[in-house]
Amino acid sequence: MFKAIVNASTFQDALDSVSVLVDECKVRLNEDAFAIRAVDPANVGMVDLSLEAAAFESYEADGGVIGVNLARLEDIAGMASSDDLIHLELDEETRKLNIEMDGLSYTLALIDPGSIRQEPDIPDLDLPAEIILEGAQLGRGVTAADMVSDHIRLRVDGGEETFFVEAEGDTDDVDLELARSDLIDLAAGPADSLFSLDYLKDMDKAIPSDAEVTVELGEEFPVKMHYGFGEGLGNVTFMLAPRIQSD
Amino acid sequence: MFKAIVNASTFQDALDSVSVLVDECKVRLNEDAFAIRAVDPANVGMVDLSLEAAAFESYEADGGVIGVNLARLEDIAGMASSDDLIHLELDEETRKLNIEMDGLSYTLALIDPGSIRQEPDIPDLDLPAEIILEGAQLGRGVTAADMVSDHIRLRVDGGEETFFVEAEGDTDDVDLELARSDLIDLAAGPADSLFSLDYLKDMDKAIPSDAEVTVELGEEFPVKMHYGFGEGLGNVTFMLAPRIQSD
Amino acid sequence: MFKAIVNASTFQDALDSVSVLVDECKVRLNEDAFAIRAVDPANVGMVDLSLEAAAFESYEADGGVIGVNLARLEDIAGMASSDDLIHLELDEETRKLNIEMDGLSYTLALIDPGSIRQEPDIPDLDLPAEIILEGAQLGRGVTAADMVSDHIRLRVDGGEETFFVEAEGDTDDVDLELARSDLIDLAAGPADSLFSLDYLKDMDKAIPSDAEVTVELGEEFPVKMHYGFGEGLGNVTFMLAPRIQSD
Repeated sequence: MFKAIVNASTFQDALDSVSVLVDECKVRLNEDAFAIRAVDPANVGMVDLSLEAAAFESYEADGGVIGVNLARLEDIAGMASSDDLIHLELDEETRKLNIEMDGLSYTLALIDPGSIRQEPDIPDLDLPAEIILEGAQLGRGVTAADMVSDHIRLRVDGGEETFFVEAEGDTDDVDLELARSDLIDLAAGPADSLFSLDYLKDMDKAIPSDAEVTVELGEEFPVKMHYGFGEGLGNVTFMLAPRIQSD
Repeated sequence: MFKAIVNASTFQDALDSVSVLVDECKVRLNEDAFAIRAVDPANVGMVDLSLEAAAFESYEADGGVIGVNLARLEDIAGMASSDDLIHLELDEETRKLNIEMDGLSYTLALIDPGSIRQEPDIPDLDLPAEIILEGAQLGRGVTAADMVSDHIRLRVDGGEETFFVEAEGDTDDVDLELARSDLIDLAAGPADSLFSLDYLKDMDKAIPSDAEVTVELGEEFPVKMHYGFGEGLGNVTFMLAPRIQSD
Repeated sequence: MFKAIVNASTFQDALDSVSVLVDECKVRLNEDAFAIRAVDPANVGMVDLSLEAAAFESYEADGGVIGVNLARLEDIAGMASSDDLIHLELDEETRKLNIEMDGLSYTLALIDPGSIRQEPDIPDLDLPAEIILEGAQLGRGVTAADMVSDHIRLRVDGGEETFFVEAEGDTDDVDLELARSDLIDLAAGPADSLFSLDYLKDMDKAIPSDAEVTVELGEEFPVKMHYGFGEGLGNVTFMLAPRIQSD
């Protein structure tokens, strides 16, 4: 069984983080949290979302798994104003999710979870550098990099204690330099990896510009990005595989 | 002869109600009102617009009929700010309409009224149910229905004294339930009809979200929707033919 | 050598005035001003932009000429907020322009000036009529004319001391009439010329709506339009060749 009431903007933020990577996903209706793990079709980007039971106005679940068309669910949630409450209830017999808000009911047919790509195991990497910055700072680097290249390089210079976001185009280059004093925090360590800008742009779309984002980085290793939302009761981790350095 | 001065936003609201259904129309320049009746090419949706002489700053007319390219006239009226006054004057000799606002003159060539589809007779139906609600409430139902289907069902439950806006998709359903207390008023009666969503969406576009809309409904009968604008001196009636119930 | 610091919105206004006509241009890094002259590929519209050294927070230049991809440079400048400062520095060795703003560096490859269309000589015409009006007034005439025609006629009636912006379509006409009292100033003289609306629309895009624009006009002669920006330290002159009167 699953029955919950949630603030619309919290629920929308939760769905956004997953829908930038996949169109369909499995949702785990755990007793203590509404949780999604998903990986994109190319196995390059992963997301791990958890929205704790305490983030809901009310929450009852017993550990089931449902398959959901995310685009559909986002459209419905988007009908609500940000302060509205959304009521969710699983109809076990019809395998449909009933979604209600202020007089409006939507019956969403679920997808067989067996037909959805398997949930990824998000590896527990011990990455040597950690940068904490605002979502808007990361977004600025991504936008600038996108002007010149399809790739973006994230790098920490230990000596200078500085985080670099770099892109090299055919003729032009971009370089965003964020010193420790520009950042919320920096734990320097050997870190220099290249990533596909398309994926990072998608992830960046989901990250609120005022979110405090923790970026974990290594040398030619995946990057992990965490941020919280919904007063800290929602948590998202993105992981993105590196590209082989082209230079 | 025809010579009138009108507030830009009132005139824009008047034109909008017709342009959602047709591109060209006949305008009756009656002594007491500026009036348009039109039906869409498929004979499914009709509109009856009347803007009383008192809605104008000044109004002189003697009952002529002109043919107008509505899209053109809307573009011109759209050049005015909402508080501007628009001056209209018919040049009988050249068969052109002179439109002036704050130093800007536009000479609009008229269309031969004989070449425009005949004005419909809007039947005087005695429909058993009447619902009065805000434009925004109707719009919400239309938007939600559009997520799942091409059709929309409007229905009144006499026992519950409730107005239902419903749509059935291939897998998902939408249901907006508005009890008497959610509505401005409800006179229940046997009413259950299915409509093409495309038409209702177009009509809904013209209805201001704060307008008080009277919906008259029967069983597999056309729906009539009335609303006023311009301090009640403008009146619009839409009529939409039903679709045969698919279920 | 070239090294300068400039307010982002002043720099953006400067680039806009040229980019509406050409994609690439030569920039003269004069000791006393940052200057661009350019003509569109069809030799119909010209622009002469000058941004005085005093418009910059700091400015050092020795008269060099660089070739610039304007669309690229505008995109970069657009990354800055309007109050940000943009740092520009020419790297003579690599022939690249370094552009920096708040931690973000962009290295822009320059274009060989020899490969860019020659700078036009903007003729020193003594045009008989001069109209001074707000950018927004000109824009209103251009928008209205665009509803009916590809051409626009600018005309002064000496007797009435009135400036006319006119367009004749196949069936409809537009006429904006601005008397001396509607204008900032008018020095009447024989003036009546027809212009391509496409060019005038592009130029109008660059003209701020609150700019005081001086229009110089003659009979079947080019029109000159000047306006200042950046507290008068930036100056733009557009010149547009006439079309042969069609009527």
